[in-house]
Amino acid sequence: MAQWAIGIDFGGTAIKAAVVDEAKGILLDRRVFTDTASGVTGMIAQLASIIAELYRHALHSLDAQDFAGAGVGAPGAVDSVKGLLSYPPNLPGWEVVALRDELQQYVMERDGLSIPVFIDNDANVAAYGEARYGAGKAFNDFIMVTLGTGVGGGIVLNRKLYRGGHGTAGEVGFMILDFEGEGVHAGIRGTLESFIGKKGILSMARRMINESEVASSVGQLCGDDYAKLSPRHIEQAALEGDAVCLAVWNRVGSILGVGLANVAVLMDIRKFVIGGGISAAGDLIFVPAREQLKRSMLPPMHDGLELVPALLGNKAGMYGAAALCFG
Amino acid sequence: MAQWAIGIDFGGTAIKAAVVDEAKGILLDRRVFTDTASGVTGMIAQLASIIAELYRHALHSLDAQDFAGAGVGAPGAVDSVKGLLSYPPNLPGWEVVALRDELQQYVMERDGLSIPVFIDNDANVAAYGEARYGAGKAFNDFIMVTLGTGVGGGIVLNRKLYRGGHGTAGEVGFMILDFEGEGVHAGIRGTLESFIGKKGILSMARRMINESEVASSVGQLCGDDYAKLSPRHIEQAALEGDAVCLAVWNRVGSILGVGLANVAVLMDIRKFVIGGGISAAGDLIFVPAREQLKRSMLPPMHDGLELVPALLGNKAGMYGAAALCFG
Repeated sequence: MAQWAIGIDFGGTAIKAAVVDEAKGILLDRRVFTDTASGVTGMIAQLASIIAELYRHALHSLDAQDFAGAGVGAPGAVDSVKGLLSYPPNLPGWEVVALRDELQQYVMERDGLSIPVFIDNDANVAAYGEARYGAGKAFNDFIMVTLGTGVGGGIVLNRKLYRGGHGTAGEVGFMILDFEGEGVHAGIRGTLESFIGKKGILSMARRMINESEVASSVGQLCGDDYAKLSPRHIEQAALEGDAVCLAVWNRVGSILGVGLANVAVLMDIRKFVIGGGISAAGDLIFVPAREQLKRSMLPPMHDGLELVPALLGNKAGMYGAAALCFG
Repeated sequence: MAQWAIGIDFGGTAIKAAVVDEAKGILLDRRVFTDTASGVTGMIAQLASIIAELYRHALHSLDAQDFAGAGVGAPGAVDSVKGLLSYPPNLPGWEVVALRDELQQYVMERDGLSIPVFIDNDANVAAYGEARYGAGKAFNDFIMVTLGTGVGGGIVLNRKLYRGGHGTAGEVGFMILDFEGEGVHAGIRGTLESFIGKKGILSMARRMINESEVASSVGQLCGDDYAKLSPRHIEQAALEGDAVCLAVWNRVGSILGVGLANVAVLMDIRKFVIGGGISAAGDLIFVPAREQLKRSMLPPMHDGLELVPALLGNKAGMYGAAALCFG
């Protein structure tokens, strides 16, 4: 009999949770807005409610004996061994919280359920979801890079999460690609995120539109109000053939390629899974990224290079969180 | 009874070999010039002779039963599983050679000795030597960076060599730190080696001397012939207080710090062992490297950061090669 688990993607905006069958995937899911105003205890209560509800619901068709636990992907630094979540950037009022134990205890005290809880950070959990159920299934070793508001990463080696000695491995957004460059993110100059995080892309686009000798058609899409410019506008204009926006994505992809090459030469990882909202731009990013990746590495190291889109979209977190319980 | 092994540092200039007792370290050693003119077979014969000689010599005081084998650190890409050495840059005429098996067979056929042979690349072997006998003894996870003509690296995770899926992990010299920078090494722009390999340091120094408003005293050390400028001259001038040369080392150390920060954020490695001829400049490099390392990482990730000099000097290769046999 296959195991099943509850997988939770705990974000600053929404909590997404699913019952996941190890073999069949997601059986049912739920989504609620994160009640950030209710503080640590309130949010733990929210998580506990969803776990208890999904668990009871699942028991109509699944066997309690095959239940592997509830996994949580959380935003912030997570010590998965100790079960601690530290300073999640989008959860006001949280400092260091023993999320795993507090959640387990809450579910026990309020609902009388003894449920093993596992936690890890959201980037790791998304990578693990893709490893077990998505674009990484065929790869022993890969890095998943999430392109969104920020640039996150999760590393899978030998089909297991590589967390590093302090649980902070995979922070590819903090990799420095131009140490004398202009962009600064979180006080650090020239990081991958400073270039191709959402903010970086938008300021790159505004600069390139400004400096271009040919006019960009993207102005029509944002009502000529460049403060309202979004990655979607740049994507749409590029797909319609706008040269400036094509050049923007070309540069975004190239810079991503440089970052991936650094991962490849350091860790000997040659498989790259790219996800996150910004990655919807697809080949606009992937084609220049693949080219730059090769240009940035010696030819004998090109063997086996693959850059592929993530497959699970915003379900990667739920899948990966559940998979934490399957071990 | 402790094991013992023969450790060989096989370089383009010299072959250094030692009998290493697992507990006591190097018992005796030999050094011969590499006979590159003799081609693949000639060099394999050289290695075989040294192994046979050291083995027979060692048997005067050591037990054959405790012999673990002969390890070889070789310059170039090594597949340690298959025992292949590919395209060693400093050994003319070598392409892909089954060094392990050919050496083992040669020792058997000519000397009638059945000796297990292990091979790995020189950077990995040096890192493993420091891990077992040197500056890395206290560290579970670290990277050793060798600053010499080139910039090499070897990664130790959980006290074992991390080689990656294709055996090419740790190529920190190829990490790109300024993708639009001027320096190019092996066709790739802005790599760590393009900045702080020997050639990079010398051209950086010449430029800084040229552009400086104050005269540098280093001219006196190289007879005002800047084609003859060496890292030693720059080191000596800096130690005598020359502002330009101090600034050169400051920049070398800073750039090293940026590279190490990239290793830290990606792999969650916080211990750095720095070796190689250029590292003789010591604190001239280490102090700015430590400062830049911190500036390049978020404060919560500063815990446990340590940058230390390698301890084994040019013996790291022999130690590490022997340690390959100890498993």
